[in-house]
Amino acid sequence: MGILRLGHVDVRVPDLDLATAYYTSVLGLIEVAREPGKVYLKCWDEQDHHSVVLRYHPRPGLDHMSFKVESPDDLQDLENRLEAYGAIVRRSSPGEELAVGEGLRFETPSGHLMELVHHVDRVGSAVGTLNPLPRPTNLEGIAPPRLDHMLVTAEEVGDATRFYTDVLGFRLTEQLLDGDGHQIGVWMERSHSPHDLAVVVGPNGGLHHFAFWLDDWDEIRRAADMLAYHDIQIDVGPTRHGITRGETIYFFDPLGNRNEVFTGGYKPDPDWAVITWTADQMGRGIFYWEDAVNDRFLTMHT
Amino acid sequence: MGILRLGHVDVRVPDLDLATAYYTSVLGLIEVAREPGKVYLKCWDEQDHHSVVLRYHPRPGLDHMSFKVESPDDLQDLENRLEAYGAIVRRSSPGEELAVGEGLRFETPSGHLMELVHHVDRVGSAVGTLNPLPRPTNLEGIAPPRLDHMLVTAEEVGDATRFYTDVLGFRLTEQLLDGDGHQIGVWMERSHSPHDLAVVVGPNGGLHHFAFWLDDWDEIRRAADMLAYHDIQIDVGPTRHGITRGETIYFFDPLGNRNEVFTGGYKPDPDWAVITWTADQMGRGIFYWEDAVNDRFLTMHT
Amino acid sequence: MGILRLGHVDVRVPDLDLATAYYTSVLGLIEVAREPGKVYLKCWDEQDHHSVVLRYHPRPGLDHMSFKVESPDDLQDLENRLEAYGAIVRRSSPGEELAVGEGLRFETPSGHLMELVHHVDRVGSAVGTLNPLPRPTNLEGIAPPRLDHMLVTAEEVGDATRFYTDVLGFRLTEQLLDGDGHQIGVWMERSHSPHDLAVVVGPNGGLHHFAFWLDDWDEIRRAADMLAYHDIQIDVGPTRHGITRGETIYFFDPLGNRNEVFTGGYKPDPDWAVITWTADQMGRGIFYWEDAVNDRFLTMHT
Amino acid sequence: MGILRLGHVDVRVPDLDLATAYYTSVLGLIEVAREPGKVYLKCWDEQDHHSVVLRYHPRPGLDHMSFKVESPDDLQDLENRLEAYGAIVRRSSPGEELAVGEGLRFETPSGHLMELVHHVDRVGSAVGTLNPLPRPTNLEGIAPPRLDHMLVTAEEVGDATRFYTDVLGFRLTEQLLDGDGHQIGVWMERSHSPHDLAVVVGPNGGLHHFAFWLDDWDEIRRAADMLAYHDIQIDVGPTRHGITRGETIYFFDPLGNRNEVFTGGYKPDPDWAVITWTADQMGRGIFYWEDAVNDRFLTMHT
Repeated sequence: MGILRLGHVDVRVPDLDLATAYYTSVLGLIEVAREPGKVYLKCWDEQDHHSVVLRYHPRPGLDHMSFKVESPDDLQDLENRLEAYGAIVRRSSPGEELAVGEGLRFETPSGHLMELVHHVDRVGSAVGTLNPLPRPTNLEGIAPPRLDHMLVTAEEVGDATRFYTDVLGFRLTEQLLDGDGHQIGVWMERSHSPHDLAVVVGPNGGLHHFAFWLDDWDEIRRAADMLAYHDIQIDVGPTRHGITRGETIYFFDPLGNRNEVFTGGYKPDPDWAVITWTADQMGRGIFYWEDAVNDRFLTMHT
Repeated sequence: MGILRLGHVDVRVPDLDLATAYYTSVLGLIEVAREPGKVYLKCWDEQDHHSVVLRYHPRPGLDHMSFKVESPDDLQDLENRLEAYGAIVRRSSPGEELAVGEGLRFETPSGHLMELVHHVDRVGSAVGTLNPLPRPTNLEGIAPPRLDHMLVTAEEVGDATRFYTDVLGFRLTEQLLDGDGHQIGVWMERSHSPHDLAVVVGPNGGLHHFAFWLDDWDEIRRAADMLAYHDIQIDVGPTRHGITRGETIYFFDPLGNRNEVFTGGYKPDPDWAVITWTADQMGRGIFYWEDAVNDRFLTMHT
Repeated sequence: MGILRLGHVDVRVPDLDLATAYYTSVLGLIEVAREPGKVYLKCWDEQDHHSVVLRYHPRPGLDHMSFKVESPDDLQDLENRLEAYGAIVRRSSPGEELAVGEGLRFETPSGHLMELVHHVDRVGSAVGTLNPLPRPTNLEGIAPPRLDHMLVTAEEVGDATRFYTDVLGFRLTEQLLDGDGHQIGVWMERSHSPHDLAVVVGPNGGLHHFAFWLDDWDEIRRAADMLAYHDIQIDVGPTRHGITRGETIYFFDPLGNRNEVFTGGYKPDPDWAVITWTADQMGRGIFYWEDAVNDRFLTMHT
Repeated sequence: MGILRLGHVDVRVPDLDLATAYYTSVLGLIEVAREPGKVYLKCWDEQDHHSVVLRYHPRPGLDHMSFKVESPDDLQDLENRLEAYGAIVRRSSPGEELAVGEGLRFETPSGHLMELVHHVDRVGSAVGTLNPLPRPTNLEGIAPPRLDHMLVTAEEVGDATRFYTDVLGFRLTEQLLDGDGHQIGVWMERSHSPHDLAVVVGPNGGLHHFAFWLDDWDEIRRAADMLAYHDIQIDVGPTRHGITRGETIYFFDPLGNRNEVFTGGYKPDPDWAVITWTADQMGRGIFYWEDAVNDRFLTMHT
């Protein structure tokens, strides 16, 4: 019970047409709806109405991140926990967001607007539920099957982590410690994956990236070819993370928000021990093959 | 809360030395302990004490399947549900099984001995939790990172399914229906995977196979090379399932128990709609590329 | 100098429309020309005018196989050798075959019509020669980059082999011997590949299969998905050959001619030693993972 | 007839023990012989005595590159052509180099010592020629099956290219032109591969890298894991070249010589048209995904 997964990211883009063209043609998401100033997108293997919202805003960055909870009761339970913690929680109304039911909205200690919802209209995946094909035949672009996780920045990673774990029930899978043993990066999950949400040190409210799942290392190669074909600048990769073991490419949407395609990694059970990375192994932890992190990766976010 | 995953399979083998040699050298599991008539094995990325028990018995087959629950309270809760259902539940004592805490034991409507436990001694994975390598360097054989799922046979698949879902809380991901709309195969999960437990029509108490996870299609090829090198007969594959979308090889241990290596597939959230396969598409459902199921696959189990 | 490679296969099909639909939509070849009773096709990375000719004929099978020679002088040199051997050689005229220059035509001891040509009109590959993409963006179906090799049947494999090697200059890469040490299968090359032409025991004049190159094991999986999607029956595979080490799928065109997609294998230099397979290892040699050859594979050809 | 392939590279290393440890444990070559100041190595799928010679020298770099010719007569023919060109050719004696027969030695216009030989003792591959396994079971490190190609630098790429093509018979597969249409990089082959030898602009006599073949993109990933495990610094990659289409990683041996692992690419016939890259597409040509070449790649060689 509790939080199931990352449901959607609501991302600010200064040019909605350009962003939509990129997220549909290059990344290969499916446009499901459009409202003034907003475009709703989903991945082909997702059943809910949308997993990405592009929202017009003069500056790129995160508007909010929305996590889905398993049952309606979870909303009440989590509201109680949030209020006990001292958070100011607002109940959002069904339909306040397109296709989304009642939710909780609050600011996290890392300065991010977070939403918890239970109901999202189900529109079904692109292969349906009757004798489905393993993959649709008409995909365009990179075409990830689903949204996977996001990484945000926080001034006080330790405080943010206590909030996400103690109040919201995220489970810590990995942590990166500085020389004094303080957390400067944490990876947390609710869905038997290496991470649904991660936090690294940086300004409060920052969006480092949001990531889409790909099925394997060969899809990573195909994604790189697709990015090159569309003249999209790669930030880092293809490479492997030490942390999560996953294979990855980072790149930017045309408005400057960082995207990732991610695959591999392990399948942690909730009862697994936490993996710790020490500061001297940060290079291997972040980019296992390079053993080094470029400045852009450390400093650039929206 | 409730069942987390398949914890271990306890398998009968008429020749313990031969079975141990195969499961360690060919499949590449790690021997963790030995008792008179029993050998305990684990996969390299598992943290618990063991995931496979080989048990001497004149005939191959399943002794019992053991699922792990998230919290100690789950045992009481599930015991209540089982007794309400009418099952005869025995509490096993800590240490009755090596490295395993108190548990519940009962026979399922499909005629299988099932165990639910919370505590299993944690021995850690082969890469540890401090700056771990993505993979150990000294692996032998196929070396799957973990046990994945199992498939058992039942005379009345529908009855068995109701038990597993209604009483034990498994979630149906896919079902195969005969021409009359009755379930002849079901796939159920508790761990955000396409299946932790599956049931197909056959004699009560039968073990069709248990399966190990591999990381991708290339590991499937490597597994096939390894099986050939060791003269292990392949039953089916490499191929793809329509059901689960996963890629697979089936083969037999030297005593006749069927093993599988499995990868790919989707990542279902608990709120996903059930996928249905109709009888006319059974071939594609079971083996998507062949569109046909060999007789051995349908009739042979232990 | 001498034979460069397999240039094209000219294949008989009882239904030209059906065959064309299959070879373009499923296999993904490009139609380059059409004449009464004939359709000319090429693969996307080939520069010559065509590599497959579909020819209407009431019965499926091979009309002829055409190998390309490096220089015009090679034709004269090979004609001399053929006549010294006792073959009846006919000079074909430029344009007798669409886009093909003067050639030699003769029947081989294995009962196959063979053609040697130097000039074929060059139409260029689908990516061109100026800052080319690594792969065209508009491919359909399996879309192999090129024709790879063919396998024919002969009553006397040894005699056929002596002809192909001694007269035509093919180099033996591998041979399969029966219990008496006689060749029952041979693999021969002219292009630093494991085989351009292979012969196995069977009726004279038989076509076992012709094969297209795929780039890797992942393309093999994609080909299998494509075949299943189009309801094309797979004969064998995905699997690996012991002979050539290559990975493969065999399947049939809708008229009954066997196709293969093939990848992997080694890169033999002309000075390599011949690899020998003994009869007791025929299973591993043909299908390394299965260690067995199905009857259809041994007996069915066109 | 003529040059068959790159036979071996003879490389200078200031620390023979360190170099040997690296080339055997990390790269996974097999040590075949040792002489004072020299270690001979081969790849597992090569039949000749060696393909890499490590030679003690205070400064890293290339001692010489050795290409193998198809027949003994080729040596005489090429000697005639070299002398007609004005090269000073020395005949080396059988045994002057361990396991190598008579050869020709001369300096190329790019300032490199080049050797042409026909005879090299054949020691056979690690899998033998009787019912061979597809791959040896005891490989260590990256373990490429064979040496693939090398890239050297030259002040006048055009002059060097004319020598390699007109005198030695290399066939141009791709060329990179500067804004004035002059060649600043050329790729040439003798073995139906995208390149056996390449030249880019730089100081005469420079060694940019020598490259080993890997079987596919998954082996590229495994190589990257292996390099990271051994703390070997990666220069660039995993990435894809536009030129050759191949997938690659560049890295340095502990003495500063650049190595590459390479896979993929096309299979050019000798009659293919040359591919041309214009200066504005140099980034895509060299590193297709990055569309940029790092300074180190352009300026660092030995």
